[in-house]
Amino acid sequence: MQINDVEIKDTYAEAFGIKVSRILVTAATKKLALTAVTEATGYATSVIGCPAEAGIDGYVSPLRTPDGRPGFTIMICNSTKKKLEHELLERIGMGILTAPTTAVFNALDNEDEFLKVGFKLKFFGDGYEKELEIAGRKIHSIPIMSGDFLVESEFGIKDGVAGGNFFVMGDSKMSALVGAQAAVDAIANVPGVITPFPGGVVASGSKVGCNEYNFLNASTNEKMCVSLKEEVKESEIDTDVNGIYEIVIDGVDEISVKKAMTEGIKSACSIPGVLTIDAGNFGGNLGEYKINLRDLDY
Amino acid sequence: MQINDVEIKDTYAEAFGIKVSRILVTAATKKLALTAVTEATGYATSVIGCPAEAGIDGYVSPLRTPDGRPGFTIMICNSTKKKLEHELLERIGMGILTAPTTAVFNALDNEDEFLKVGFKLKFFGDGYEKELEIAGRKIHSIPIMSGDFLVESEFGIKDGVAGGNFFVMGDSKMSALVGAQAAVDAIANVPGVITPFPGGVVASGSKVGCNEYNFLNASTNEKMCVSLKEEVKESEIDTDVNGIYEIVIDGVDEISVKKAMTEGIKSACSIPGVLTIDAGNFGGNLGEYKINLRDLDY
Amino acid sequence: MQINDVEIKDTYAEAFGIKVSRILVTAATKKLALTAVTEATGYATSVIGCPAEAGIDGYVSPLRTPDGRPGFTIMICNSTKKKLEHELLERIGMGILTAPTTAVFNALDNEDEFLKVGFKLKFFGDGYEKELEIAGRKIHSIPIMSGDFLVESEFGIKDGVAGGNFFVMGDSKMSALVGAQAAVDAIANVPGVITPFPGGVVASGSKVGCNEYNFLNASTNEKMCVSLKEEVKESEIDTDVNGIYEIVIDGVDEISVKKAMTEGIKSACSIPGVLTIDAGNFGGNLGEYKINLRDLDY
Amino acid sequence: MQINDVEIKDTYAEAFGIKVSRILVTAATKKLALTAVTEATGYATSVIGCPAEAGIDGYVSPLRTPDGRPGFTIMICNSTKKKLEHELLERIGMGILTAPTTAVFNALDNEDEFLKVGFKLKFFGDGYEKELEIAGRKIHSIPIMSGDFLVESEFGIKDGVAGGNFFVMGDSKMSALVGAQAAVDAIANVPGVITPFPGGVVASGSKVGCNEYNFLNASTNEKMCVSLKEEVKESEIDTDVNGIYEIVIDGVDEISVKKAMTEGIKSACSIPGVLTIDAGNFGGNLGEYKINLRDLDY
Repeated sequence: MQINDVEIKDTYAEAFGIKVSRILVTAATKKLALTAVTEATGYATSVIGCPAEAGIDGYVSPLRTPDGRPGFTIMICNSTKKKLEHELLERIGMGILTAPTTAVFNALDNEDEFLKVGFKLKFFGDGYEKELEIAGRKIHSIPIMSGDFLVESEFGIKDGVAGGNFFVMGDSKMSALVGAQAAVDAIANVPGVITPFPGGVVASGSKVGCNEYNFLNASTNEKMCVSLKEEVKESEIDTDVNGIYEIVIDGVDEISVKKAMTEGIKSACSIPGVLTIDAGNFGGNLGEYKINLRDLDY
Repeated sequence: MQINDVEIKDTYAEAFGIKVSRILVTAATKKLALTAVTEATGYATSVIGCPAEAGIDGYVSPLRTPDGRPGFTIMICNSTKKKLEHELLERIGMGILTAPTTAVFNALDNEDEFLKVGFKLKFFGDGYEKELEIAGRKIHSIPIMSGDFLVESEFGIKDGVAGGNFFVMGDSKMSALVGAQAAVDAIANVPGVITPFPGGVVASGSKVGCNEYNFLNASTNEKMCVSLKEEVKESEIDTDVNGIYEIVIDGVDEISVKKAMTEGIKSACSIPGVLTIDAGNFGGNLGEYKINLRDLDY
Repeated sequence: MQINDVEIKDTYAEAFGIKVSRILVTAATKKLALTAVTEATGYATSVIGCPAEAGIDGYVSPLRTPDGRPGFTIMICNSTKKKLEHELLERIGMGILTAPTTAVFNALDNEDEFLKVGFKLKFFGDGYEKELEIAGRKIHSIPIMSGDFLVESEFGIKDGVAGGNFFVMGDSKMSALVGAQAAVDAIANVPGVITPFPGGVVASGSKVGCNEYNFLNASTNEKMCVSLKEEVKESEIDTDVNGIYEIVIDGVDEISVKKAMTEGIKSACSIPGVLTIDAGNFGGNLGEYKINLRDLDY
Repeated sequence: MQINDVEIKDTYAEAFGIKVSRILVTAATKKLALTAVTEATGYATSVIGCPAEAGIDGYVSPLRTPDGRPGFTIMICNSTKKKLEHELLERIGMGILTAPTTAVFNALDNEDEFLKVGFKLKFFGDGYEKELEIAGRKIHSIPIMSGDFLVESEFGIKDGVAGGNFFVMGDSKMSALVGAQAAVDAIANVPGVITPFPGGVVASGSKVGCNEYNFLNASTNEKMCVSLKEEVKESEIDTDVNGIYEIVIDGVDEISVKKAMTEGIKSACSIPGVLTIDAGNFGGNLGEYKINLRDLDY
C-alpha cells in the first residue's frame, strides 16, 4: 500500500488505556492563554518518567468559549484516577492559577466520572472565595493578587487511549523530521488528541527492557537506530532509510486516535524524501488496542 | 525614592537558598533547541507544588557553543541534591533526549559538586553507547532512533538563591501586567537567572499558612488582592493601585539575583501607569537573603 | 449603551470601497507557510503611504486545502484594479515564490472579475513551466531551484470595504492596548477580514489635512491625542481616558466588516480598564459606508 | 576543501554595492518591538521587484538601548539615496509610527551622509511636535493618539554590500532546507547584516535574462533546478544532490558580509545530509565584490 509513493507498512500500532481529562484555559489574549497552557503541559511526554502525559489539543476562538475570551483546550493524562487528580490539582494550581488573567473550564464530553478539582483549589481563597455560575457551569472565584481566578468546580475524566503511534522514515534525517513536523501540524486540527512529546515528535523510540543492563526496564530500540544500521545485524531499517522519527498520540477515544493517525500519516507522505511509514508494537501482548496502518480511512 | 516617577518602597525581598544546575541544550536550529527546553522546563514554577523550579536562562549563538550549534541555557533548581538529581535525569531523559537533534552540556561555573547525570543516562544505549570528547568535555554518545544523542558526563550544581522578587503595581491591571512583562524582557538579558513562573510573571502571590482552612500551608495574600481592597480592612494596597503582578527570580548567586531585580525594576518603571514597586518578605525569619529595593544599583 | 460596563458611543465608523483579493498560501509545514505570508503582507498598513493594504485572514488546516498541506489565507487590497494586479504579481513573485515549499491558490468567493496573475508569473519558468489541474483548478507549475512552485492561473478580485474601525479607550495606555489586542484576537476568527496595521493595532489615528503645514494631506488627530488632552481645547477625550488605540478592518464585504467590528468590540470590552468604544468618521462625506456602533448585533 | 565532510566548491559569490541604513526600533516590550519591525521590513526581499531590501539585524536588550527599552536593529537598503529616503520615510511612517509604543533611533556607524527622516516625519505632529535630547541625540517627539512617538532627527546611510550569497545543497530537499535555516540562525548573530528573503532563505535562485521570453530580464536558473536535473542537459547539479536553497546577505560592509557567509556556511555544514556549498556569480562582470568561498576564515 502506498500514499503519494510512500510505502505504508503492513503492521499495527499498539496502544494502551489511560485516564484522560480535557480542560479549557481562557485568558485576556490568545498569547496569555498560550503562555499558561505551555507551562501547565510541560514536562509531560510519557508517564515512563514524567509525572503525566499532557499537551495542547487546540485553540478555541473567543466566539466559542463560555467567557468570550480566547482559550486553548489541553489534555492531561495518567495511568490512574488518583495520579490524574494530583496532576490536575498541581498543574492547574501551579501553572494556570499563577498565570495572568486565566480561567479554567471542563472541556470533556462523555465523562465517566468527575473530580472535584476546582472545589479543592478554592480553599486557596482562605474564605474569600465565592461561587458563580457561567453558562450553566458551577464556578469558584478565587481572589488572587491580580484579580479573581475562575475555575469550574468539577472536571470530567474518562478512559482514553495512549500510545497511538507511527514512524516517519526518510531518505535523510531532515526529510524524516520535516515529515514528522508536517504530521504534527495535521494532527493539531483533530479534536480530542495530543502529541505529548517535544514539538509533537519523538527522537528516541525505545524497546521494553534492556539486554545489557538488567536494572533498566526500557532502553534504546537498536534495531531502529539509523546510526546502528551497519552494526546491529537484526536492524529492521531499509537500506535507503537514513532518518526515523516517531509520532505518539494520546486521545479521548480510539476513533480520535485513528483520525489523528490518518491525517498525520497523509501529511507526512506529502513531504519530499519521506519513504516509509511504520508503527510500533510489542507483539500485541501489552496494549488493548491494535490499530492497523492499512485499515485507516485515508 | 523614585525611578521615572515610580515609587520604590522602602522594603526588601526575602530570598532562600536552593540547589541550582545550569545546562546548555543545543540543536540543529534555534527553533528545535527552543522546543526541547520549553518541554524540559515546564511544570516548574515553584517547589511548593511542582517537582522543580526551572526556566530558560538565555540563548547562546552557534558562534559560542561547544558544538557550533544554536542553544539555550536552562536552570533547574530544587531544595536538595537528591531531588535535583532526579529532576535532571528525568527532565533531560524525557524532555531533551526525546527531542529532535539535541545535545546537552554543563553550563555552570563555580560548581560546588558534580552529579553523574550523563553517566547514568548513557545506560539507555543498552551497550551501544560510546564515549567522546568535545571541546575538552567528556561526552556520552547514545544511539537513538534518529541519530546519536550527546550528553556531558557530569553536571555541576551549586548553592544558589531562590525567591528573589518584586511587585509591579499599576493604576490598572494591564499597566501592572505590561510592566511585569517589560521586567521579564530585561531580566532575560541577565545571565545566571530565571523567572520560573508562566511567562515570568506571577498572578497569585501567596502568604504562609491559611487562616480559614488549617490544612493548607499557603493561601492567597488577601492584603495584596486588588479585588479585596474594600473588603479586607488590613489591605496594604494604595488607593490608586488597581493591578499587581509579582516577578520571582532564581539565580546562581545573590549578585545575579540583585542584577536581575535591578534591571527588571528599571524596565517596569518605563511602562506608563506603573505606580509603585514593592517586594515580598516574611518578616525576615524564613529566608537567608534580604535584598533591599532601595539598595540596588539602578 | 454599554457592554460589560464599557460605554459604546453613539457614533459610526466611516468606511470606503477598495479592490480586494484573497489567496491561499500552502507550504510543507504551518511555520513555513506563516513565514511566506508574513513577508508577502508586510509594509501594507494603509494605501496612504504603503503600496497596498494586506494581512493574514486565517489559518487553513491541511484537512481543508486543495493540496492537503497547511496554509494561510491572506488578503491584498488596493484602490484600483491596476494597482492591485501589480501588488499581487510582486508580493506573490517576490514574497511567496521565493519562500521554501509554497503553493498559491485563489481563495475568494463571489469574484467580480479575475486577474491572470499565475499566468503572468509562469514566464519566470523560461519555457520549462507546465500546466496542471489540482482539485479542478488550473495551475502553473514553475520549476525553481528547490523544486516546483505551483500557482493558480487566475485570482479573483471584488469590490470590498476598507477602513472599518473603532477606538478602544482605557483608563491607562496599557488597558487600551491590551483591549485592542484582545479585539484583534477575536477578529482573527472572523473570515474575510484583515486588520492591516502592525499586530492589528493602530497607535496613530490621523485626521484629513493639516492645519499648520499645508503640504501634508494627513496629520495627527490632536483632539484624540492623550498627551495633548490639556493642551488642545477641543480635545474630545473624556477626563478618565488616558490611552487610545484604533483597530482598522478591511473586508471582502460590509457584512464581514460588521461581524469583525462586533466581535472585536465585545472582546475589547472584556479587558479590565477599558472604558469607552468610539469610532472614526469624517462627517460622512468621504466614505460609502456608515457603520453605527450601536446597530451592531452584539 | 571540506568542512565536516561537506564539499566547499572552488567558486565565488558576486556581490554589489547598495545604499544602506540601519535603525534601532524600541518599544515597551520585546514582542511589541518585534511586531513593529516585522511590518516595517516586510515585502523587501529584493529590489528586483520589491520597493526595498530590508530585514532584522538583531535584538538589543533594554540594558543597551538609548531609552532603556528592548529593541531591534533593522537594515533598509536601496540602490539610490533618493529611493532609500523614500523607503525610510514610508516604512517608519507607516510601519513603526503606527505601531504601539515605538521609538526610532539611528544605529549606523561610519555613516557616509545623513538623511533628515525624523525631521520630515515630525510635520505629522501639525505643530504639536517637540524637540528633545536623549543620550546626546536630537529627537522629535510627535504626539499621536496613544502617546508620543519619538524619532531621531537624522539617519545615517552608507555604501554597503548586497547580494552576498551561498547555496546549500543536500541529498534531499529537506536536508538543504534545514541546512539553510541553520545558516540563517548563525548569521542572525553577526551584526551589520540581514538575510532579506522569507525566513532568510531563497527557494528560487534566478539567472540574468530569459531565453524563451525576451520581455523578462530575470528567469529561473534551469541549470540549478533539481526537478530539471534530467531534462536540462547543462544541469550543474551533482547526481546525489536533490535539494538546493540559497542564502542572500546584505551588509554594512564587505567584512560583515564575509563574516556572515563564514558563520552561515559553517552552520549549514553541521546539518546531516548537506553535501555541498556553492555560490552564485555572473562571471564577475556585474558586481564589484568577489568573495571566494575557500578564502573565508572558517
